Amino acid sequence: MSTRTPVACLRDHVGSTVSIAGWVHRRRVLKSVSFLVIRDRTGTAQAVFREPPEVAEETVVRLSGVVAANPQAPSGAELRDPALEVLSTVEKRPPFPLYRPDVPASLPVVLDNAAVALRHPALRHRFEVAAASVAAFRRVLDRAGFTEIHTPKIVATATESGSNVFRLDYFGRPAYLAQSPQFFKQAMVGVFERVYEVGPVFRAEPHDTARHLAQHTSLDAELGFIADHRDVMAVLREVVAEMAGAAGPGAPEVPSDIPAVDFVAAQELLARHTGEDPRGEPDLAPAHERWLGEWAAREFGSEFLFVTGYPMAKRPFYTHPDPARPGQSNSFDLLFRGMELVTGGQRLHRHADYSAVLGEAAGDYSDYLDAFAHGMPPHGGFAIGLERWVAQVLRVGNIRGTALFPRDLHRLRP
Amino acid sequence: MSTRTPVACLRDHVGSTVSIAGWVHRRRVLKSVSFLVIRDRTGTAQAVFREPPEVAEETVVRLSGVVAANPQAPSGAELRDPALEVLSTVEKRPPFPLYRPDVPASLPVVLDNAAVALRHPALRHRFEVAAASVAAFRRVLDRAGFTEIHTPKIVATATESGSNVFRLDYFGRPAYLAQSPQFFKQAMVGVFERVYEVGPVFRAEPHDTARHLAQHTSLDAELGFIADHRDVMAVLREVVAEMAGAAGPGAPEVPSDIPAVDFVAAQELLARHTGEDPRGEPDLAPAHERWLGEWAAREFGSEFLFVTGYPMAKRPFYTHPDPARPGQSNSFDLLFRGMELVTGGQRLHRHADYSAVLGEAAGDYSDYLDAFAHGMPPHGGFAIGLERWVAQVLRVGNIRGTALFPRDLHRLRP
Repeated sequence: MSTRTPVACLRDHVGSTVSIAGWVHRRRVLKSVSFLVIRDRTGTAQAVFREPPEVAEETVVRLSGVVAANPQAPSGAELRDPALEVLSTVEKRPPFPLYRPDVPASLPVVLDNAAVALRHPALRHRFEVAAASVAAFRRVLDRAGFTEIHTPKIVATATESGSNVFRLDYFGRPAYLAQSPQFFKQAMVGVFERVYEVGPVFRAEPHDTARHLAQHTSLDAELGFIADHRDVMAVLREVVAEMAGAAGPGAPEVPSDIPAVDFVAAQELLARHTGEDPRGEPDLAPAHERWLGEWAAREFGSEFLFVTGYPMAKRPFYTHPDPARPGQSNSFDLLFRGMELVTGGQRLHRHADYSAVLGEAAGDYSDYLDAFAHGMPPHGGFAIGLERWVAQVLRVGNIRGTALFPRDLHRLRP
Repeated sequence: MSTRTPVACLRDHVGSTVSIAGWVHRRRVLKSVSFLVIRDRTGTAQAVFREPPEVAEETVVRLSGVVAANPQAPSGAELRDPALEVLSTVEKRPPFPLYRPDVPASLPVVLDNAAVALRHPALRHRFEVAAASVAAFRRVLDRAGFTEIHTPKIVATATESGSNVFRLDYFGRPAYLAQSPQFFKQAMVGVFERVYEVGPVFRAEPHDTARHLAQHTSLDAELGFIADHRDVMAVLREVVAEMAGAAGPGAPEVPSDIPAVDFVAAQELLARHTGEDPRGEPDLAPAHERWLGEWAAREFGSEFLFVTGYPMAKRPFYTHPDPARPGQSNSFDLLFRGMELVTGGQRLHRHADYSAVLGEAAGDYSDYLDAFAHGMPPHGGFAIGLERWVAQVLRVGNIRGTALFPRDLHRLRP
């Protein structure tokens, strides 16, 4: 194929003959002149024709011709009367025009037609932010000596939460899809000290909410030789700052010291300033998280807020208690714009502590407990939901809008 | 926690008091002196004691003391009579000594005890090579303008090969684990032009072989606006060269031009030089791949060999035919040390071509075909099996040795 010029570079070639290739983003036929706007992965550029070219929008074309400067053209330059070659025709029109600045379609229309709908630059942009965010996550952890791992997604027991797991037929035996890499990443702290994994996790979420998916991409990290959960929060702060820096316009500022509020203090704030009294409840309701998000913005000018010290009662069994207050835990949530974005904390690391909390159930966890029988350092970690991060950064109301092909209670296709 | 010095940096602190932390890798008690070898993620270092410390191997400890130069010590320096603090005790002995240079255990013992066995530096090294290889894969593709994607692992139809899929219960409906991101990555060429994904793929492989797993990590790439499969091979060559460069000792040299042999010519070579005559067969047997690997090493001094032009009969339906020889395809395998490491090629990109090859079955693929109805450029891609790559680079005989927690016909735990 002849050398192809990215359309974003067109203005660097004024006066030269170039070849561009892409999709017919828009076709406009005026009385004396016609335009094709060509879209490639770098942007859009316009070509001007005396005779209207007979190509439908989304046709894949190559245009070859001389570049002329035009300050009014989207890329500052345009092709004038180029030779046009059709690389691939279309059989169907898109379900909505892809060239409108906004997306003139409902979420179900977008999701049902993802293969073509995601070509809309505003929708595509969400996934460019996702890719840049994941790269930022890895960059920070690579610098800090973490090792990337890949753990099984098929597991023998539905251990972590018991419910909400997908069952599958594994060569005639029952098996389950992993809800998280939790047990594996903890065991791998024993091998690598510091690990991360970017991968799919699966929850058979029976509720139709705007913030849950049956499959999402989890950015998991776990590190050993910590003093307590605050060492984990410090790493998380660096990760989130780099992710925000990579997300471009709309991304939040991450304070060098993210404000933190203790769970009990947060409940007292809520009791004092809202009509409700959540004291004694073991967890925060979404409305409480929203109020705390607004409070942190007001008090600290921060869109991020750590809530620490959640009651042990509502945290998973592997959570490390606060040595000074055994009913509270060395765990945290990170709220971003009033929504839980990250859950993390210090884990139990002594075999005897696991035996004590699991009691009779220890047998179900024998594979998991093996790592702790062989000496594990104090450790902790966190998990960031990628789709939720992008949705909050770009203010997309429904998490289905930040998964390429979302899976939920009703949706298994396309 | 007080500042911790990585053991690999010990020699930089001769004369100073430092704190190191890690696992008791080895304990040696001699008549007048005792040694602890401490392992952390950076290596091993020795501490010398007048009185033998009572700690079992794999105990997690912190040692604080003065660093003394000692050219005989593994890291060129050692701690003399440091203060010892136990961070975590052990309940069990490892199934084999972790300090021996070789691994004195069979593969099943390693796999059954992965959480502790992988602490052996030689076993851990395999996964450091895996992590470096994946980083190299991404680095090359990021530079070339690829976008990272995350696609569904739960799919509605068992389309790609029909057999060897895992079935699962999806909210009461049948669903399947994805055997590859093939259809999704092709559709995403329509959005991003160039995409890659690193993720798990699932095959219900009913045979017990040394080179197949029920779950493996697939490094998938797909790119648009190619002339033919040779543009894909050129990208793949860059990827493999970077991966080899990252793999360290034992890694192969990747020629700037990897030798390529046409499938028909390869069969003629085999007929001429081996006792067999495979001409007319639609695929190469593993023994033939091995012979071709040796031939390429002899003829070209290359551990890599492309075989191109496989018969259409044995390639998946989305394979693009060779326009000059319609029975042959624009596809390739990349053999590495005589084993298929990568499969790839140019794909069909015209909706009408899919309709023609699928015929009546087109309805089963309607989600997939949607992308092609909306204009898709000529494109192609490839998939590298991560575990197989590491096994071949490090000459590990069984692919189970390069997965942290392998899954196969018999193995669903730990």
